[in-house]
Amino acid sequence: MSLNVGVIGTGMIGQDHIRRLTKVLSGVNVVAVNDIDAARAALVAPDGATVFDTARELIRAETVEAVVVCSWGPAHEEQLLECIAVGKPVFCEKPLVTTAAAARRVMDAEVAFGRRLVQVGFMRRFDADYRRLKATLDDGALGAPLMFHSTHRNASVPEGLYTSEMPLNDTLVHDADISRWLLDDEVAGVEVRVPRRSSRGKELRDPVVVLLHMASGALVDVEISVNIAYGYDIRGEVSCEAGTVSLPLRPASIIRDIHGVRQAVPIDWRERFIEAYDQEFREWIVAAGQGTATGPSTWDGYAATLVADAALRAVESGALEKVDMVTRPALYASKNDRPDHGQFSQQRMKSAS
Amino acid sequence: MSLNVGVIGTGMIGQDHIRRLTKVLSGVNVVAVNDIDAARAALVAPDGATVFDTARELIRAETVEAVVVCSWGPAHEEQLLECIAVGKPVFCEKPLVTTAAAARRVMDAEVAFGRRLVQVGFMRRFDADYRRLKATLDDGALGAPLMFHSTHRNASVPEGLYTSEMPLNDTLVHDADISRWLLDDEVAGVEVRVPRRSSRGKELRDPVVVLLHMASGALVDVEISVNIAYGYDIRGEVSCEAGTVSLPLRPASIIRDIHGVRQAVPIDWRERFIEAYDQEFREWIVAAGQGTATGPSTWDGYAATLVADAALRAVESGALEKVDMVTRPALYASKNDRPDHGQFSQQRMKSAS
Amino acid sequence: MSLNVGVIGTGMIGQDHIRRLTKVLSGVNVVAVNDIDAARAALVAPDGATVFDTARELIRAETVEAVVVCSWGPAHEEQLLECIAVGKPVFCEKPLVTTAAAARRVMDAEVAFGRRLVQVGFMRRFDADYRRLKATLDDGALGAPLMFHSTHRNASVPEGLYTSEMPLNDTLVHDADISRWLLDDEVAGVEVRVPRRSSRGKELRDPVVVLLHMASGALVDVEISVNIAYGYDIRGEVSCEAGTVSLPLRPASIIRDIHGVRQAVPIDWRERFIEAYDQEFREWIVAAGQGTATGPSTWDGYAATLVADAALRAVESGALEKVDMVTRPALYASKNDRPDHGQFSQQRMKSAS
Amino acid sequence: MSLNVGVIGTGMIGQDHIRRLTKVLSGVNVVAVNDIDAARAALVAPDGATVFDTARELIRAETVEAVVVCSWGPAHEEQLLECIAVGKPVFCEKPLVTTAAAARRVMDAEVAFGRRLVQVGFMRRFDADYRRLKATLDDGALGAPLMFHSTHRNASVPEGLYTSEMPLNDTLVHDADISRWLLDDEVAGVEVRVPRRSSRGKELRDPVVVLLHMASGALVDVEISVNIAYGYDIRGEVSCEAGTVSLPLRPASIIRDIHGVRQAVPIDWRERFIEAYDQEFREWIVAAGQGTATGPSTWDGYAATLVADAALRAVESGALEKVDMVTRPALYASKNDRPDHGQFSQQRMKSAS
Repeated sequence: MSLNVGVIGTGMIGQDHIRRLTKVLSGVNVVAVNDIDAARAALVAPDGATVFDTARELIRAETVEAVVVCSWGPAHEEQLLECIAVGKPVFCEKPLVTTAAAARRVMDAEVAFGRRLVQVGFMRRFDADYRRLKATLDDGALGAPLMFHSTHRNASVPEGLYTSEMPLNDTLVHDADISRWLLDDEVAGVEVRVPRRSSRGKELRDPVVVLLHMASGALVDVEISVNIAYGYDIRGEVSCEAGTVSLPLRPASIIRDIHGVRQAVPIDWRERFIEAYDQEFREWIVAAGQGTATGPSTWDGYAATLVADAALRAVESGALEKVDMVTRPALYASKNDRPDHGQFSQQRMKSAS
Repeated sequence: MSLNVGVIGTGMIGQDHIRRLTKVLSGVNVVAVNDIDAARAALVAPDGATVFDTARELIRAETVEAVVVCSWGPAHEEQLLECIAVGKPVFCEKPLVTTAAAARRVMDAEVAFGRRLVQVGFMRRFDADYRRLKATLDDGALGAPLMFHSTHRNASVPEGLYTSEMPLNDTLVHDADISRWLLDDEVAGVEVRVPRRSSRGKELRDPVVVLLHMASGALVDVEISVNIAYGYDIRGEVSCEAGTVSLPLRPASIIRDIHGVRQAVPIDWRERFIEAYDQEFREWIVAAGQGTATGPSTWDGYAATLVADAALRAVESGALEKVDMVTRPALYASKNDRPDHGQFSQQRMKSAS
Repeated sequence: MSLNVGVIGTGMIGQDHIRRLTKVLSGVNVVAVNDIDAARAALVAPDGATVFDTARELIRAETVEAVVVCSWGPAHEEQLLECIAVGKPVFCEKPLVTTAAAARRVMDAEVAFGRRLVQVGFMRRFDADYRRLKATLDDGALGAPLMFHSTHRNASVPEGLYTSEMPLNDTLVHDADISRWLLDDEVAGVEVRVPRRSSRGKELRDPVVVLLHMASGALVDVEISVNIAYGYDIRGEVSCEAGTVSLPLRPASIIRDIHGVRQAVPIDWRERFIEAYDQEFREWIVAAGQGTATGPSTWDGYAATLVADAALRAVESGALEKVDMVTRPALYASKNDRPDHGQFSQQRMKSAS
Repeated sequence: MSLNVGVIGTGMIGQDHIRRLTKVLSGVNVVAVNDIDAARAALVAPDGATVFDTARELIRAETVEAVVVCSWGPAHEEQLLECIAVGKPVFCEKPLVTTAAAARRVMDAEVAFGRRLVQVGFMRRFDADYRRLKATLDDGALGAPLMFHSTHRNASVPEGLYTSEMPLNDTLVHDADISRWLLDDEVAGVEVRVPRRSSRGKELRDPVVVLLHMASGALVDVEISVNIAYGYDIRGEVSCEAGTVSLPLRPASIIRDIHGVRQAVPIDWRERFIEAYDQEFREWIVAAGQGTATGPSTWDGYAATLVADAALRAVESGALEKVDMVTRPALYASKNDRPDHGQFSQQRMKSAS
């Protein structure tokens, strides 16, 4: 039985997901599309799909069993609440929503509904490299994780369109989410440091260094460089008590020529994470077919919003900006959310202070 | 429109392909299965698939648009000829057939039909690492390929079931096919050398070293080790005139612990080539949907059979055993099969001798 | 002509340097030794060397052309001033001195003398890996350096003997000095962050993260972990405007076995830097033979002292602690300390010949 | 006490060794030089060294305690016999001699003298990378060595001066000697295969592939490429029963730029093996000071001569050319030359055939 899906938002990422759902993955059909630009929606709709005038109509259509939200951020809250109202699973591209208050409203609605329906598009969690890294951490042989060094480099960003806030409210969310997931931890505070500016980005605040103080006391440092010319380079190393674990180089032919022994670096995020996007939807299709969601949740989207807010405050204040989250609803319990673990974390925080 | 496929042979590999065609890939349905063990066929048939008593009936069934052959080797010839007789695309697991004469009969039938219908299961050609390696070679910046060092290591093989002939008629075919494909060349002769035996394989002839003398004069050396304990390790480096290109390590977390800086090696061929199998079928589904085949052809299966035969002769004789192929039918023209290229190769062979 | 050297301090490091000067290097003789423990001095003195009762007598002895100071830190100031007073070149193990005021007194004396006589034992500057890294930076093709990620890991430290201050006033000086040298920059401020503590170090403050704010705006982050079990691992990557440059793995056989594909990590600093120590003295012998010094200077020792002081303040305050240096005397001009680079290079080339 | 050395032959390599003995190493003086070109000898003689008219006079001079032979190959036999006649240790650059008969005469003289006096310049045995590789093999955890893949690549060779025989009688000796040493084995037979020719070498027979059949049954394959443009690349991997061990990349900064993630390859043999040359002489100085030699012996020079002869025959015959050595004199016993080991080797040869 295939899952019948409606796609809201048919911009670049929406079109890519339509391609993925129709040409790459099995067990899913795109039966409905909607976009504020109705002509574009009609143009990219797959054969047999209905074009709806409004997102609301698409969500409520009987033929639509699950929804993929690729509209712009400010529209997400209403669309997510609508999906929850009718009890349909929904995959929502990041950002979940654009304010902490909106995130809490979506979270309250989902908690009231009583079952997870929302999955947020943090695709790194589906990347095989990150999953292997987490498996090593969870195995425990290296001891507790103490630090995570995360490197997030783009070859370039569109001049003028990419502003100095974006490393902190757009780019950073991936490092923040993957830190929370890898370490099974929460971000308790954020600091931002601004090194000497790259002349390649003109007036852009680039690079930036972000310190995420995790609830356990673990410290994450993130280098965000968005004009580094040589490629899209995502790296990470977790320093544990008895060793470390790092992301490997991406597979690329080893060439020996006059430039030395060398391997190509991915050009952009599409090349780097294309399999992760595929896997993300593969798992969502299974979960949505069972009427629920998997992976990154509304809670994770809420956390990302708070971290981005704190980062923007921190770059202005130069200080440590706290991240104050509400108590985590049981619906979003992490695998380690048992009493004994909680106690342990408390103890760890004390000894770390 | 989905492709309706019938699967012949429901042993281990047949079951894996059924899983792939029903759960992993899009655009395809398994509508029919057949096995000499009817009970097994019934057990593993997907919902809604018809179980046929004979391969012939399955092939001729109206609901079946394309066929996947996973039966044992000696049964392949008849099943392939039947598919060609009814003009249906067929994916055939290796070996294509078990004798050179049989390969020629299948080839003759397909040539008479006038369009490629047969695709052989040399999955390495669909592996991303090999494809990137070939792209570098084809780019030409490194000059002509002169040598290819291929390493084919298994952690272990089933004692008793894996005989001393199998490195040469079962394992070697992958290296031979990928050599032909990477270098866009043919195997002209085969030598086998037998080093000191590994005590881990008891009486098994392990390892063996095979030299493939290519028509262009390029030389391929293959290390086949089938009891090397540490993992399934497929490596390759092509030495060209102005540099070399090699397969990279497989992606695996870089762990720093008391064993050093280290990365895991794949356990077995499933782990190593699972994505290649998926991609192989992805491309076959597209080609079969258009009534034809892509990638490794009957010609390639024929070549593999001749190389295996020559290798078995060579291990006995200790000499260089020639591989004499018939003239390549135009149906199987390689991309470089133009007159000038042919001439050039001839000249190269003379000067290299 | 060999250089006749006197060694003050015959503890572990002093004995190692005596071995180096007598058995490894050419062009040098150890003609005098002194230690507060006269018996130990007598025991380790090479054949023919005179054992002096006091450092002062050794320094003033006619047979001694140059001095190696390996006594404990608090004794350095007096010994260095004595060497300067008699105009003899002196190699001084780190720390140069133990207070900023003492550093300034030595610096003033050397400036008054008018020629460099003092070389400080920051051996990393003589390490081939760091030198290659600096050559790449100086080449300029990667653009300006913006960040330096420095990792300083020890397998273990002696429990009880290694205190929580030592990562900041003993270990950090190497990272600080190499940062200043690589980036041709000064440390303007220091921050310290203390992650979750490693249980392997018991009550020890381990690991620590130090941020060095350089005068140019470049930002250096240092991970110091001193109980990480797996080895002595010194790593570094400089992020520049158009690429990055990193230290390579240390040469070690690539082993493929049941632990994966792996390479050993150095056990300790001796293994890691033994060639750097040799090279350090090789170059010192040449310089001292010409009546002067090379490499790390009194200025560098002064800077190290200020950085260590700032780091100790920063770990208490949690704030950015400034490093206020006096104006750099012309005697210690860096290669970039003048408008005209070309002229200066010319001069250096002359003086180096 | 320093060793007083006389150097015969002051060409390029002789001058480099004079530099090494006077400027790099301790415990040695160059007190005498000789060259057929007396003017050149006088020009490069260090201060205080005597220039002798003939090699014989230098060898017999009372001031000369040990001799370094860097003359051309055909002169070596007479000079070595002269050194043995007067019982002086002698370091001899490769080739030891130019014929098997000459090698046996030198060997007979040394055996008659009763103590090793001759050390041959196979510097790879002193290279840290090869030594670590051998240590892993000798440790035994990987089981018996079965194959050794050796790669010997030069960026280029002087056109016209480097002939088609030289890969086999000049270049190959290094791979042959290191194979014998690493595997603690002898070469029993040689085959040569000639791949398609590189157009970069014009008429030169390049590359060549050499198979060394070791007495134990282990098989060594050597790629010799002498015009591969990208650098001087020496690689090696030993395949054992339960794993493999390889030479690592040479240390070089890891650069990330538009050419990818890359490390430089050594330009030439000087850069690659400069430390090995230093270490070779360091150990020779110690041994010669004790009136003997260490490392590669007359026996090893004899073996190299036989392998080169066999390789030249093999490239003509296309066949397996046997290497028949005399019984190894006890003076040259390998560490494994005990009765039980010999028996074991015999058994291994039988089972491997």
